[in-house]
Amino acid sequence: MSSATPFHELIKKKRDGVKLSDADLGDMVAKVVSGEAADVQIGAMLMAMFLKGLDAEETASLTRHMVDSGDKLEWGEEWRDLLVDKHSTGGVGDKVSLPLAPALAACGLKVPMISGRGLDFTGGTLDKLESIRGYKVMQPVEAMHAALEDPGCFIVGPTARLAPADGELYKRRDVTGTVDSVPLITSSIVSKKVAEGTRALVMDIKVGSAALCKTVESATTLARSIIDVATLLDVPTTAVLTRMDMPIGRAVGNALEVAEAVSCLRGQGPRDLEDLVCVLGGELLHMRGRAADRAAGRERVRAALHDGSALGCFRRMLERQGVAAADAEAVCAEPWRVLPRAAHTTPVLAPRGGAVRAVAGLDIARACQRLGAGRCRPDQALDLAVGVVLDDALHVGAPVLAGDVLMTVHHTQERLPDDVLALLRGAVDIGEEAPGDCRPSSDRVIDILS
Amino acid sequence: MSSATPFHELIKKKRDGVKLSDADLGDMVAKVVSGEAADVQIGAMLMAMFLKGLDAEETASLTRHMVDSGDKLEWGEEWRDLLVDKHSTGGVGDKVSLPLAPALAACGLKVPMISGRGLDFTGGTLDKLESIRGYKVMQPVEAMHAALEDPGCFIVGPTARLAPADGELYKRRDVTGTVDSVPLITSSIVSKKVAEGTRALVMDIKVGSAALCKTVESATTLARSIIDVATLLDVPTTAVLTRMDMPIGRAVGNALEVAEAVSCLRGQGPRDLEDLVCVLGGELLHMRGRAADRAAGRERVRAALHDGSALGCFRRMLERQGVAAADAEAVCAEPWRVLPRAAHTTPVLAPRGGAVRAVAGLDIARACQRLGAGRCRPDQALDLAVGVVLDDALHVGAPVLAGDVLMTVHHTQERLPDDVLALLRGAVDIGEEAPGDCRPSSDRVIDILS
Repeated sequence: MSSATPFHELIKKKRDGVKLSDADLGDMVAKVVSGEAADVQIGAMLMAMFLKGLDAEETASLTRHMVDSGDKLEWGEEWRDLLVDKHSTGGVGDKVSLPLAPALAACGLKVPMISGRGLDFTGGTLDKLESIRGYKVMQPVEAMHAALEDPGCFIVGPTARLAPADGELYKRRDVTGTVDSVPLITSSIVSKKVAEGTRALVMDIKVGSAALCKTVESATTLARSIIDVATLLDVPTTAVLTRMDMPIGRAVGNALEVAEAVSCLRGQGPRDLEDLVCVLGGELLHMRGRAADRAAGRERVRAALHDGSALGCFRRMLERQGVAAADAEAVCAEPWRVLPRAAHTTPVLAPRGGAVRAVAGLDIARACQRLGAGRCRPDQALDLAVGVVLDDALHVGAPVLAGDVLMTVHHTQERLPDDVLALLRGAVDIGEEAPGDCRPSSDRVIDILS
Repeated sequence: MSSATPFHELIKKKRDGVKLSDADLGDMVAKVVSGEAADVQIGAMLMAMFLKGLDAEETASLTRHMVDSGDKLEWGEEWRDLLVDKHSTGGVGDKVSLPLAPALAACGLKVPMISGRGLDFTGGTLDKLESIRGYKVMQPVEAMHAALEDPGCFIVGPTARLAPADGELYKRRDVTGTVDSVPLITSSIVSKKVAEGTRALVMDIKVGSAALCKTVESATTLARSIIDVATLLDVPTTAVLTRMDMPIGRAVGNALEVAEAVSCLRGQGPRDLEDLVCVLGGELLHMRGRAADRAAGRERVRAALHDGSALGCFRRMLERQGVAAADAEAVCAEPWRVLPRAAHTTPVLAPRGGAVRAVAGLDIARACQRLGAGRCRPDQALDLAVGVVLDDALHVGAPVLAGDVLMTVHHTQERLPDDVLALLRGAVDIGEEAPGDCRPSSDRVIDILS
């Protein structure tokens, strides 16, 4: 694994803005994975990459070597044109994967979804699924294969053998201030998707105050980078830019979001959530030639949500991943018979009357984090029952009266801390009149790039 | 030692080019010394500092906190205006400290010199002194004080308690490609000088192919930074920019350089070495009001080298630092009775006749490193006897005949490796005619800044 170029010479090259060759990046990845590169050197290299950047070719090389640093899942030639996946840059209340994977499976596609835990604010997809009794996020390859056979999807956690170089770099980025780097984000996302064996990808790139990308410009830059690099690695990719200011759907918190995802799978979910699932799924159906155009793709996904076929796939996926048949059935029929429910609820009331000018998803997420729904430290256990549910009428532009219920907090401790309540009350901006831009929250799509 | 600002937030500030406050830098230094900052974070911070820079105020803050991270030597109010020191950015054959410290002591100044080991190419001042039997580079503070009383100087190694933050950062810079940073170099040099208690400083900043600074511009930038920061920390500083292409004096190698330093202390050293000692010492005498102008200062130092007073101080310094009286006397009278001598010598002959166009000090240093005179790894033991002595006639512009002796290699292994011989032969560029610019090598001074 060792080569003639010492690691600090690779650092100096990037430091000086010199393009790293494919061999350089292979060398770097090998030394990171073998432990030959010291932590202090990895920190310096990450910062040099952050500040000097990597072009598309360098990013593709880095990504390919990250994939090659571990195992690659292979799903057989007969599924070649069916394998699809979705990845989101992360949003408040983002439970899209839960209805989307089974909906796509119901449409005949194969979805080998490797997801993550939440590192910030709210729990991740895996945390949400773990609020279902018996669900096992770690699965042997044989079980994954069986799940792709029927129902056609799985949602599992990453193994240490999948792009281990990504794991080594990723865990060091948060503490070194090198998270917000387009090439590093790109290589991290794409390496995992290539390693899981998907053959097409739709990216949900969130834009707004509660998102990684605060502006359309920065989101477009990230989208272009991911599309370019994934395409160089033979995974055609479409990126959907979506607004992320107020939460997706009404629920924030792990079990609360599972319940909402089940509603969506029953065709009874919040409009914005259902639309987002249809938009993202529609792109994949169209990309894989399963729909004449994106509109037809969307309607195909919507039908799967409304005809029970997506729900059936979800139920069978739960069983494949360790949930007892009776529990899987209960989750799909009456989720609260199975999901953990918080002991206490407290309404958050409007302090004054007026019109809703904004709902700050980030503040809601922070409040949920303080309740225990999200992590402050990577190894923290979550309280899967807690969270917040927005009132059905709470939308930007909606009128409110003083004392109206804005949202309901689900909490485990008897007394809701004052600072959490204050944070939630402050999350809803109530003004004299509605803002000029009053698009319905279901209209989240800003742009679609491919 | 902990504070509310997490280390990664400090990294992000510098990453984004935001000026770090005095409190930020104090926080950073505290966390580096306490171990609260992880290696990977220190690497990222060093690279952010390298690429984004620190202004004079930030560098002064960093330096002050580095000093405050450990003990500070104090030498009493009565010596306040006498305490001086010299620091060099490092050159091939640079043994200037050995004659300079005792020469300044002979002129009535106090020289608390804390020096270093060589990390590259050739040994450092401490390595050279260790070729004298019995010399102890580590001394308790009481012994240092006694040496400042009489003869008025010492040359010791840094203790772990002196600016420990510098040690923590310094050892990480080499492996992270963050050595050549003006603010980091400045803070490292100045912190040690402030901590040792000097009240005035002359910097010897080398410029040329065998130096840290390759150009006069980069040397001037470094000089300005050191002068500004040291002045902010109450250590008035003058910087002398000197040429560093061919070695200083004739000898390269630890014991060989001690012998040449003794010649200099007897008034019989190579002209360029003596001139450099006089120039640097003259600045300090002038700065401290011990000479009417720099020319008078130089002549005062020269007199100390020629009247035996500097040699006497050197002998007494050796005794203070552990050398037996008889050995100290022998070193000063007939150094080779005491110093380790290599078993073998091999002449390097001119492959053709012509005129000397250049002598590449860097190649000579690399050859000496391969012989064992310099370190390849920090913990490597040196062969103190080996090295190279240039022929007295070898100067830029001098005529040579094919077969003339260019230099003599002193080596321990019986057979001189071919690659070392080739490196040394190639170090002397012999052309048809002498180059246009044929300044004598003794004319090393380019500029003096204060």
